[in-house]
Amino acid sequence: MSLLITGSIALDSVRTPVSEQRDLLGGSASYASIAASFYTPVNLVGIVGSDFPRHYLDLYRRHGINLDGLEIANGPTFRWSGEYEWDMNRRRTLSVALNVFEKFHPTLPAHYRDTPFVFLANISPQLQLHVLSQMRAPRFVVADTMDLWIETTRDALLELLRRIDCLVLNESEAREFTRQTSLIKAGRQILKLGPRYVIIKKGEHGCLLFAPDLFFSAPAYPLEDIHDPTGAGDSFAGAFTGYLARTGIINHDTLRKAVIHGSVVASYCVEAFSLQRLERLTQQDIEQRYELFRLMSHFEVG
Amino acid sequence: MSLLITGSIALDSVRTPVSEQRDLLGGSASYASIAASFYTPVNLVGIVGSDFPRHYLDLYRRHGINLDGLEIANGPTFRWSGEYEWDMNRRRTLSVALNVFEKFHPTLPAHYRDTPFVFLANISPQLQLHVLSQMRAPRFVVADTMDLWIETTRDALLELLRRIDCLVLNESEAREFTRQTSLIKAGRQILKLGPRYVIIKKGEHGCLLFAPDLFFSAPAYPLEDIHDPTGAGDSFAGAFTGYLARTGIINHDTLRKAVIHGSVVASYCVEAFSLQRLERLTQQDIEQRYELFRLMSHFEVG
Repeated sequence: MSLLITGSIALDSVRTPVSEQRDLLGGSASYASIAASFYTPVNLVGIVGSDFPRHYLDLYRRHGINLDGLEIANGPTFRWSGEYEWDMNRRRTLSVALNVFEKFHPTLPAHYRDTPFVFLANISPQLQLHVLSQMRAPRFVVADTMDLWIETTRDALLELLRRIDCLVLNESEAREFTRQTSLIKAGRQILKLGPRYVIIKKGEHGCLLFAPDLFFSAPAYPLEDIHDPTGAGDSFAGAFTGYLARTGIINHDTLRKAVIHGSVVASYCVEAFSLQRLERLTQQDIEQRYELFRLMSHFEVG
Repeated sequence: MSLLITGSIALDSVRTPVSEQRDLLGGSASYASIAASFYTPVNLVGIVGSDFPRHYLDLYRRHGINLDGLEIANGPTFRWSGEYEWDMNRRRTLSVALNVFEKFHPTLPAHYRDTPFVFLANISPQLQLHVLSQMRAPRFVVADTMDLWIETTRDALLELLRRIDCLVLNESEAREFTRQTSLIKAGRQILKLGPRYVIIKKGEHGCLLFAPDLFFSAPAYPLEDIHDPTGAGDSFAGAFTGYLARTGIINHDTLRKAVIHGSVVASYCVEAFSLQRLERLTQQDIEQRYELFRLMSHFEVG
């Protein structure tokens, strides 16, 4: 089944202790869409400027991503630049220029409105609600969020939580949002706010999936070298939702598998800058690493 | 097969935000021995003072722990007092009085020296080496350590690493010891220093088992309320080694299972102060939670 994805599309400049690259394809919707494209057809909703490189549009198209909902506006594309420290765990934003993204208030193409699966990648909860309100009767809606929205638009975020099926957020955001130091308490508390499922991403510690009747703990892939952590969370959520859309079935078995697929694609994402590793990812790569995840977390009955 | 355990035996006073208890049975060897006793006969090597409560000796005996290697010296028992903050992740030591522990320089009973499995719980690496040097030909030796020894007795710790099969240490200690922020790099680096296996304990994030040809990631049990984290790591290592001693077989399958057994017993340990939960632990409790660990980390093939 097809998957609608909305979020940011950006040109990123990323500095790590060993390298620096400019005008990379970035933004939550870019990572999520390419990641999801390995599983299911994607309908993208986003905005770019007139300076947006043609070869990035070609990259989306090569991944079968429908661009009918992509607006190309006059002016420069959203730009972000950031820097990672040696341990790759801490990121510092150096500059943000919203540019055409300030005008982003999409009207969905008519043929997008029946898309059964929806992933609202990280943008303001108001925009996420604006997109969601145009969908007719989505079967399963996943949303991501970030510290900025938790701090500045809490009411809109709370409204969003009542209208989605699954929230994805990271460890520090879950703690900040719930004011709980225990992630177990944080996850259970968010469940009470509306979504049937909550996923807490823990970076190098893997992730946790919560439902009233399910707790699943997935490991992270033991990468020794991370080249660029940007977009790992977006890739996780894109592949997670993409896998569910492909199966069309939501149950404990498919949710567990979807979490592992998300972890697999995210682990490839960080092996190179921007989308450079995902561009050349194959189904065989995904299958192989999925099996490695199984080996590294498997143990026999008592 | 039987298991020799040496380490500290203490009377603890523990303060948490909700409670305070005094003269509790504590020390690394106490937690490890009681935890291991659910799996295999334990030969304890330790020292206590003349004030050591008789009912604690009875507790060891009820768990079938051999006390021939327990010295009862004139003077007061080793005492430790500490305090936990609200999130239970941070511990502050309030006072330490070594007392009779300063005289601890054990000569092992002759019938202890052929014990096939050994767990050197957290004491100085010099003392760990002193005990190990009296063993004839142990089949499998596990050691724990802590930040204090990494900082003050690094050379003895490095010598110990060349003589043991498995090192157990926690996340921050692994980072401090190797000066690596990546736990994957830290684990692999410690393997090069001698031990065939390394376990990095990550508290609420579970633990990682490293070998040259094995990587295993175990989740932590999703406890919402932790009453006293003291001794969780010692209980983990005691049950881990105890399980291996019971099977008598070291391979990837038994090591994975041993890590889960360690996690199960540690998860019970923190449910009450001191050894109060482990005192009344049953085989059925262990089996039930082992199965829950399996459910929460299991996922099907691709």
